[in-house]
Amino acid sequence: MEKKSLHTLHGGDLDEISRIYGIDKGEILNFSGNVNPLGLPLSVKNAIINNPDAAVNYPDVSYIELRRAIGEYTGADYENIVVGNGSTELISLFIKLILPKKAVIVSPAYSEYLNEIELSGGRAELFPLKEEEEFILDTDRLISVLTEDTDLLVICNPNNPTGTYIDCEEIKKLLIHCRDAGVYVMIDETYVEFSDRDKNVSAIPLVKEFGNLFVIRGTSKFFACPGLRLGYGICSDKNILKSINERKDPWSVNIFAEIAGRTMFADKEYIEKTLALTGRERKRIFETLKGFKNIHVYESQSNFFLCRLKREDMTSTQIFEQLIKDNILIRDASDFPYLGNRYLRFCILDEKSNTLLLNSLKKCVD
Amino acid sequence: MEKKSLHTLHGGDLDEISRIYGIDKGEILNFSGNVNPLGLPLSVKNAIINNPDAAVNYPDVSYIELRRAIGEYTGADYENIVVGNGSTELISLFIKLILPKKAVIVSPAYSEYLNEIELSGGRAELFPLKEEEEFILDTDRLISVLTEDTDLLVICNPNNPTGTYIDCEEIKKLLIHCRDAGVYVMIDETYVEFSDRDKNVSAIPLVKEFGNLFVIRGTSKFFACPGLRLGYGICSDKNILKSINERKDPWSVNIFAEIAGRTMFADKEYIEKTLALTGRERKRIFETLKGFKNIHVYESQSNFFLCRLKREDMTSTQIFEQLIKDNILIRDASDFPYLGNRYLRFCILDEKSNTLLLNSLKKCVD
Repeated sequence: MEKKSLHTLHGGDLDEISRIYGIDKGEILNFSGNVNPLGLPLSVKNAIINNPDAAVNYPDVSYIELRRAIGEYTGADYENIVVGNGSTELISLFIKLILPKKAVIVSPAYSEYLNEIELSGGRAELFPLKEEEEFILDTDRLISVLTEDTDLLVICNPNNPTGTYIDCEEIKKLLIHCRDAGVYVMIDETYVEFSDRDKNVSAIPLVKEFGNLFVIRGTSKFFACPGLRLGYGICSDKNILKSINERKDPWSVNIFAEIAGRTMFADKEYIEKTLALTGRERKRIFETLKGFKNIHVYESQSNFFLCRLKREDMTSTQIFEQLIKDNILIRDASDFPYLGNRYLRFCILDEKSNTLLLNSLKKCVD
Repeated sequence: MEKKSLHTLHGGDLDEISRIYGIDKGEILNFSGNVNPLGLPLSVKNAIINNPDAAVNYPDVSYIELRRAIGEYTGADYENIVVGNGSTELISLFIKLILPKKAVIVSPAYSEYLNEIELSGGRAELFPLKEEEEFILDTDRLISVLTEDTDLLVICNPNNPTGTYIDCEEIKKLLIHCRDAGVYVMIDETYVEFSDRDKNVSAIPLVKEFGNLFVIRGTSKFFACPGLRLGYGICSDKNILKSINERKDPWSVNIFAEIAGRTMFADKEYIEKTLALTGRERKRIFETLKGFKNIHVYESQSNFFLCRLKREDMTSTQIFEQLIKDNILIRDASDFPYLGNRYLRFCILDEKSNTLLLNSLKKCVD
């Protein structure tokens, strides 16, 4: 029972861990949450501190300023943007609108896609990324499983928990096929902003051309603000946007999320610092782990890594239990579909913490 | 077009008014929003200023502390409480869960009940409060229209826009009938906290006894915080609570709404000040308006009044246009069902503003 709840724990939900292992919450190095270690942008903090009285006003029901800020940031037309209470609300609204009869989900993936599809009366088939292909998507193989009755394809890019990605050109190939076959494509880009700028990961440049594409993004991970509940969706099909707006609670994004959103996307310093830290540490961690004889690490374009234990006499749960003794909290990834009990996921924190993790991990497995 | 948008304007949406009438937004005395003139409680303001970094955490997915605070405040068992993104989310969730085939809505009322029922594929019948009965609900007449196929009754208490109320004893009579007839009763108590304490308006003491009762409350009006989006529902049917929790976005209440909620309900000073101001001014405004020969005022247990113009040569829209010249914004109530074009609604602000309104109104109509 306790083991189960640990597996499914959210990064922010440290109280349970703290209680079970008798560790002070503030002492835990949380590698399981995938949240930017730089913390809340100072600009956002100041915007909130300076505007507490904003709460006496309703948010702008059209969220014009917020959508314009997102437009500036992403390069998308603000009229193609819809905001929501975290990406969760948008995933739910889009699926409830499309009502897919048969969806294909590239997996292993976030369980919420499957839940929402089944809640809406649809059926979902999981399309497995293969370990022997380093969990890199084979676009042609994916296209070959999209049967005539498929009406929705769900991709997380870069993918959670594998960290792997497909680039914009491959996505375009998929989108052309899907458009011709009448398949909607939902791409969850929660982690895309952590990717290297020389990789073309985001599908946003394709939104205008493909009305069957719905791109979803959150702010929780990159801007370190899961408490704000701010997500957005981008789509060029005006009917989809109109229907989503009709169905959603008009003010589901609260005024502090609105204020924060109008601030964070313009905070170039925070964004650059994040990219520099993530890029540098991602490279270092990857190179270090490649030197571990008992760990296989998969290349990542996200702010986390998936690893496989090569030793047959060790499980991910054992490693989890070992590391927590050093106050290090990682994600035992064994409950994701297609991953066995030798998969671990951990995110990139600051340099010092990352070194502690690498050392502890080496001590445990190598 | 402009006239229409004024009618349906929300209290907080002053930009439009400001633009159309060329008045500085800060100069408008907003009698249309029904928001407590004391503004955001200082305790809430401080809680937000002191905790901007709370945004780096997810809200507690079970909202235990928040629900306990609501429990303390309302006298309800916290296990019977569900929180939502404003009362809007809870109205929507409850109706989508019950899926009423035929609902009866005591009217005139907030249009959102009807919208949600129709969106969910149900039919709604409006039960008219009668002008000749001073818009006071006749419980027996209401019971007589609840036919065999009725499965939901919707009441706002005190009612918006009439300000009238039914007391707990009458509600109990309704609940007994409805329970026996298999009818759910949803009571929206958005304005209940403004009522005099010697009146028993709230149905919360009946929640334990009646599983068919769902009480909904917001915080926007009484605690002057529509930007926070914090509402709550109270019900003793565990299956209803469980189903609502399964269907709702897990973190739809954001961290600042959670922090505010844990603070505001314990702010006895703010609550007492609000009650004192509302009680005193409600009495004074009512007595003053009763002395107006061309206005009929209905007795209110809310923080607003509905009035009817007795002069046949004047419409509510004309009065609206007259008053806005004095920077006074009231609600032209002519778009509510059953109200003609001689109904006005305005809320209680501070003593000085209320006097200005009364004087302007006298100048216009008497």
